[in-house]
Amino acid sequence: MSETKHVVIAGGTHGNERTGVQLIRRFRANPKELERDRFKATTLLANELAISENCRYLDQDLNRCFSSALLNGKAENREQSRAQEINRLFGPKGASSQTDWIIDLHTTTANMGVTLVVQQHDSLALDMALYVQQQMPDSVIFYEDNAADVDPFLCSIARHGFLIEVGPVAQGLLRWEIFEQTRMAVMHALDFIDLQIKGSVNLPSPREAEVYEFIKKLHLPLDENGEVRGMIHPDLQDKDYQQLSPGEPIFILDTGETLLFEYPETVHVAFVNEAAYYDQAHALSLMRKRNLTWNG
Amino acid sequence: MSETKHVVIAGGTHGNERTGVQLIRRFRANPKELERDRFKATTLLANELAISENCRYLDQDLNRCFSSALLNGKAENREQSRAQEINRLFGPKGASSQTDWIIDLHTTTANMGVTLVVQQHDSLALDMALYVQQQMPDSVIFYEDNAADVDPFLCSIARHGFLIEVGPVAQGLLRWEIFEQTRMAVMHALDFIDLQIKGSVNLPSPREAEVYEFIKKLHLPLDENGEVRGMIHPDLQDKDYQQLSPGEPIFILDTGETLLFEYPETVHVAFVNEAAYYDQAHALSLMRKRNLTWNG
Repeated sequence: MSETKHVVIAGGTHGNERTGVQLIRRFRANPKELERDRFKATTLLANELAISENCRYLDQDLNRCFSSALLNGKAENREQSRAQEINRLFGPKGASSQTDWIIDLHTTTANMGVTLVVQQHDSLALDMALYVQQQMPDSVIFYEDNAADVDPFLCSIARHGFLIEVGPVAQGLLRWEIFEQTRMAVMHALDFIDLQIKGSVNLPSPREAEVYEFIKKLHLPLDENGEVRGMIHPDLQDKDYQQLSPGEPIFILDTGETLLFEYPETVHVAFVNEAAYYDQAHALSLMRKRNLTWNG
Repeated sequence: MSETKHVVIAGGTHGNERTGVQLIRRFRANPKELERDRFKATTLLANELAISENCRYLDQDLNRCFSSALLNGKAENREQSRAQEINRLFGPKGASSQTDWIIDLHTTTANMGVTLVVQQHDSLALDMALYVQQQMPDSVIFYEDNAADVDPFLCSIARHGFLIEVGPVAQGLLRWEIFEQTRMAVMHALDFIDLQIKGSVNLPSPREAEVYEFIKKLHLPLDENGEVRGMIHPDLQDKDYQQLSPGEPIFILDTGETLLFEYPETVHVAFVNEAAYYDQAHALSLMRKRNLTWNG
């Protein structure tokens, strides 16, 4: 367990999520913060064109361009080209990737606090999430189920991927508490990698954690022309990870009429009123809370 | 005092400020809300291209294109063309404008509540602000000092202009309480016009109000290359219209170092951490609170 690890911290995968961009700039000015006993992480500003334009992406969401199909096909726009370039520099995606870990930094306009996004097939990333959660008890584990091959996330080109999503913060600006929470999560993630190399991670066996699994997205209320005609109900706004039961208010039309949640079961919610999802008129994600047990 | 007034409610002057856009859509679906005894207001979606792109503007901030010089010169970009078109439809800017009132709807990421922006030369707009403030006591009067000729705002092409700025809300999304506060302010502004036509506005004589006057903008902390290296200090974040005294924290560098406010006097603050102003790295506006007296 003594090999050097190649670890990359990525920011600006979405160009208008300034927190990650500013954190990368801080790390570049203060590289000692990324050093641990057994390795030294490097940094990546993933979508520099989008960063300079202060937009999420130019042609296509870069964080949807890292499936094997898109990486191995003909690039059809600027983000697909950039994804292939990043894959050459830090991949190639798959078991032979030169990069052990990519930790990708994101923000959300939703009130999701520190959310740690891991894929179900990656139990070491789940260990990392559990370790970070031990240090930051309010953080939440978001348990995604993308097979490696079709996983479109940037961090999927490393052998292990970890996405840190912090909110609420508007696009295009910096808030100190969001910046600092993101930085702390990165520090703990790097500590985990160092402990793991040394064989001294202290996690229970078997592992146990409470995780949130994605069920489906719901659309904003739309009229017959597909135009938005309502928004998240104020009773649900900012209630990420809380329960939503059938019959409770979910939307309010722009006329003030309340719409109730029609669904067969009580669920939890996330990405409530994420600005980036208005392009597809997605209002929120329904989630299922699960108690998970696994062997480390 | 019985003439019909031509009143325009404008939204989407900034394409990513969805509140105004959605409110215009509501009004178009429910035009009775814009009717009063003596007039019926019409609506304008000012920058439809920017609305469809969900960005503030394409080439230039449309709300900086309505000075006489830009309206009468050769249009050099899409927003300057659009400004001239709007001036033909609703102006022409000056005493002979066909439009009596333009009420323009904006949002901010700053915690400015309901802010009513009026120009110092327009005492009838100041009366409107005082009337709206009577109905919405938490609203704030923002007292701008642009001469009519150089005033670059869209609402300056009417004989009287009134800008409603509501926050905090992120760009690109809707929040019910912001939407509803904006709608209420519009309703009161229309009531004021109706009462004014009837000669039955009930305001004290002389008028008295507390207003905030712009002093100057301050930049975010920048490094020698002009890159942002800090942000609003958490003690000042969300403290719009509160006092800031010399020696109090104003910024925090991305390294965690606090910078103190160096200035000869105590001021008030506004537009604290407005996302739209990062393109010029403006962090906040310094304001002076004034007790104003005028004759209605």
